Amino acid sequence: MSKQALTPQSEDFSKWYNEIVYRADLAAQSPVRGCIIVKPYGYELWDHLKNNLDRRFKETGHQNAYFPLFIPESYLKREAEHVEGFSPELAVVTIGGGKELEEKLVVRPTSETVIGEAFSEWIQSYRDLPLLINQWSNVVRWELRTRPFLRTAEFLWQEGHTAHATHDEAEEETLRMLDVYADVAINEAAMPVIKGQKSNNERFAGALRTYTIEAMMRDTRALQAGTSHNLGQNFAKAFNIRFLGRNNEQETCWTTSWGMSWRMIGGIIMTHGDDAGLRLPPRLAPIQVVAVPVYKNEDEHRAVLAALNGYVQALRAAGVRVHLDDREESPGFKFNDWELRGVPVRLEVGPKDLEKGSVVLARRDIPGREGKQFIPADGLVPAVQDLLMTVQANLLAEATAFRDANIHDVRSYDEFKQVIESGGFARGFFGSSDADEKAIKEETGATLRCYPFEGSAERGPCFYNGQNEGRLAIFAKAY
Amino acid sequence: MSKQALTPQSEDFSKWYNEIVYRADLAAQSPVRGCIIVKPYGYELWDHLKNNLDRRFKETGHQNAYFPLFIPESYLKREAEHVEGFSPELAVVTIGGGKELEEKLVVRPTSETVIGEAFSEWIQSYRDLPLLINQWSNVVRWELRTRPFLRTAEFLWQEGHTAHATHDEAEEETLRMLDVYADVAINEAAMPVIKGQKSNNERFAGALRTYTIEAMMRDTRALQAGTSHNLGQNFAKAFNIRFLGRNNEQETCWTTSWGMSWRMIGGIIMTHGDDAGLRLPPRLAPIQVVAVPVYKNEDEHRAVLAALNGYVQALRAAGVRVHLDDREESPGFKFNDWELRGVPVRLEVGPKDLEKGSVVLARRDIPGREGKQFIPADGLVPAVQDLLMTVQANLLAEATAFRDANIHDVRSYDEFKQVIESGGFARGFFGSSDADEKAIKEETGATLRCYPFEGSAERGPCFYNGQNEGRLAIFAKAY
Repeated sequence: MSKQALTPQSEDFSKWYNEIVYRADLAAQSPVRGCIIVKPYGYELWDHLKNNLDRRFKETGHQNAYFPLFIPESYLKREAEHVEGFSPELAVVTIGGGKELEEKLVVRPTSETVIGEAFSEWIQSYRDLPLLINQWSNVVRWELRTRPFLRTAEFLWQEGHTAHATHDEAEEETLRMLDVYADVAINEAAMPVIKGQKSNNERFAGALRTYTIEAMMRDTRALQAGTSHNLGQNFAKAFNIRFLGRNNEQETCWTTSWGMSWRMIGGIIMTHGDDAGLRLPPRLAPIQVVAVPVYKNEDEHRAVLAALNGYVQALRAAGVRVHLDDREESPGFKFNDWELRGVPVRLEVGPKDLEKGSVVLARRDIPGREGKQFIPADGLVPAVQDLLMTVQANLLAEATAFRDANIHDVRSYDEFKQVIESGGFARGFFGSSDADEKAIKEETGATLRCYPFEGSAERGPCFYNGQNEGRLAIFAKAY
Repeated sequence: MSKQALTPQSEDFSKWYNEIVYRADLAAQSPVRGCIIVKPYGYELWDHLKNNLDRRFKETGHQNAYFPLFIPESYLKREAEHVEGFSPELAVVTIGGGKELEEKLVVRPTSETVIGEAFSEWIQSYRDLPLLINQWSNVVRWELRTRPFLRTAEFLWQEGHTAHATHDEAEEETLRMLDVYADVAINEAAMPVIKGQKSNNERFAGALRTYTIEAMMRDTRALQAGTSHNLGQNFAKAFNIRFLGRNNEQETCWTTSWGMSWRMIGGIIMTHGDDAGLRLPPRLAPIQVVAVPVYKNEDEHRAVLAALNGYVQALRAAGVRVHLDDREESPGFKFNDWELRGVPVRLEVGPKDLEKGSVVLARRDIPGREGKQFIPADGLVPAVQDLLMTVQANLLAEATAFRDANIHDVRSYDEFKQVIESGGFARGFFGSSDADEKAIKEETGATLRCYPFEGSAERGPCFYNGQNEGRLAIFAKAY
């Protein structure tokens, strides 16, 4: 690993991001255009996120299944908005087993179509509803400008797909899963998010309504961290998903879909990271505690290591993910290395600590002496458990304070432009047309991130044209 | 679900297999040629298998990572045997984002090439070795004749890829992972397997040596359930995977790869299933115990259900996967349904059981009265736990006895042909050429499954030509 310092965030946030992704060993560049290789450290972070989501999906009654990677081209064309939305970014298989295929196969960009077709066969009567399915899979969207985790041609994600007897049940499901996403973002990733509804321009291709959780990165840009779609009867009509109702009449289902991807890893990096590197939330960190021996000679090394091994075992037995770094390098090198990789807590033990029967705990989220404490060795396990919770809470508090300080209320388009230019979310009443929304994007680069749930009842004069009554909206430049 | 009886195994094993896959709700046919949809019941079975493998991979020091789905065509061509082996079954992407691609992208049939390229960048010195990586992913092999789980164009699997400093370390790893596969097959899937080495004709395209675990299905055909390859320096040379040795000289790595797929689900079906349906090994069964209330009127229903709810909670608290079937259908319908789906233990409770303070436990592996027992309700949890272990052990014992009864020693080609024709594994000394082995396949349909480890030191006259000294080999018709 290069010992050169990271580019400071304030100098070039984008450059900082790319450097930290590769230098913290989360991912590696791949020889395949637009794709990345997720290295073990990044994959384990994803695995923790995945397990936390999967548990919640099961608690809310969903089951996992697996559908084909390939989708016949004709399927995609059945829902008009859907094909228009996804056509420009498809990867297409035209050769199979050495022969030109009769019907081209699209590599799934999302699976509403192939799952819709399956649902139409699986669902016969109201007894089969609701049907609550989730899929963990890879999907492909041919992107021209890619960034590791945030925008890659292939990415890993989950996509939920459900069918219901009524609009209201579908709407309830759509909002329930948005809540699950918000819960995971806030309470696992320590990433404060704003729940809201997408505008017509920004909703999913084929959806009735799209809900979103929007986070603020440390450069004040927005990141869409998860979306949940009420698909109405659009896909049910296109794929003939019907059921025999209680009244013995054929009815059309109402469906939903919702997805979260490894983009969340990019979100975690950009929500918490600082100029020294990553800062991972303890609940998702592959390594929660790194143990570093401090010594000057082999005798000290042996003694310190023996003690550390005991501590490590005790922590592991208590369910703490701990790594003992006994490499030959100096403690200083190791401290920097694990700071770069964002390990929440460092456990140091040197000969003096042994004498005193104490250990040093250093927090990644608070640099320098302030974040260091001496703890009696026999109270190590509860102290570490407490500290991990404290770090988790502090990361969330910091990110929330940062976000709230960078949301600005605007009453005019001039104020709006000033906010967007100097950085931050612009919040104001918006009541102009879809075309006006596009014109704003054109001129300022900011998009309507969402109509937030909080304050959704408020109305006021549109900041853009000053006349129409508008709903509260949040605009920002976004990833 | 249709109430028609399954085709008996003895009448048409293939037909039985296809019927049970779909009727037990493990999978559904997909509209995409050669692909299947894995339904929740099948996916959860896969998940249990996956978790059991993953835990063992981690215990043996491996880490998960994720590599791109697409492989540039040129990569595949770098290892001569490899490209020859996989070329006929590739799916190829030629269009991306609406444009013809400059270099075609192959959908990975396996990832030695793209991972080899990554390893060449990640490995610098002996300190980086061994490098022990596993990937959970989908792969695509364009097959003309497909069967659910056993041979599908797309399938889910894991592929391990490791790099080592010496041949012997690579060989040790190859055999260690074969042992992991055998352990999972025997102790989780209750599937007895024979460990052995593949012949030149049957080894992996590009490998030095391929090891395999071979199982016998209930129609006496063989199933290759997992393979582990010592790749020698073939891929390391093709992809320039080199390291600075302790002596400060550049050396070439030795690599391995090993894989197990959802084919194992097909193996579990065909190892244990009978004419009434699936019989799932308790350690992998999505539902270990199904609880069925027996009653004649609503009063009885309420009383029985109240008791059952308590039992179900107690079992769940003890970690047993239990499902309460309170559908409107008759107990008889439910018994058949859950027999078809292979649930290892059925818990019945009726009004008389309530009076006596007892419950009925019925085993799926032993039909009729013999498999039923009355248990005091207050001893239910340990009784169920014991019974699940007993069923697991019995399935393994039954399958082992069946297999051993169907392995026949052969001393001549006539004896060999008789065994292959009447069904079973033919075991005998084989010392003829690769061409002779192909001729045998041509004439009898049987392939050399492996040179088994057990008896590998024995030598004797070749059964095929009666002259050459041969090693002990097992031949069979295979899936």
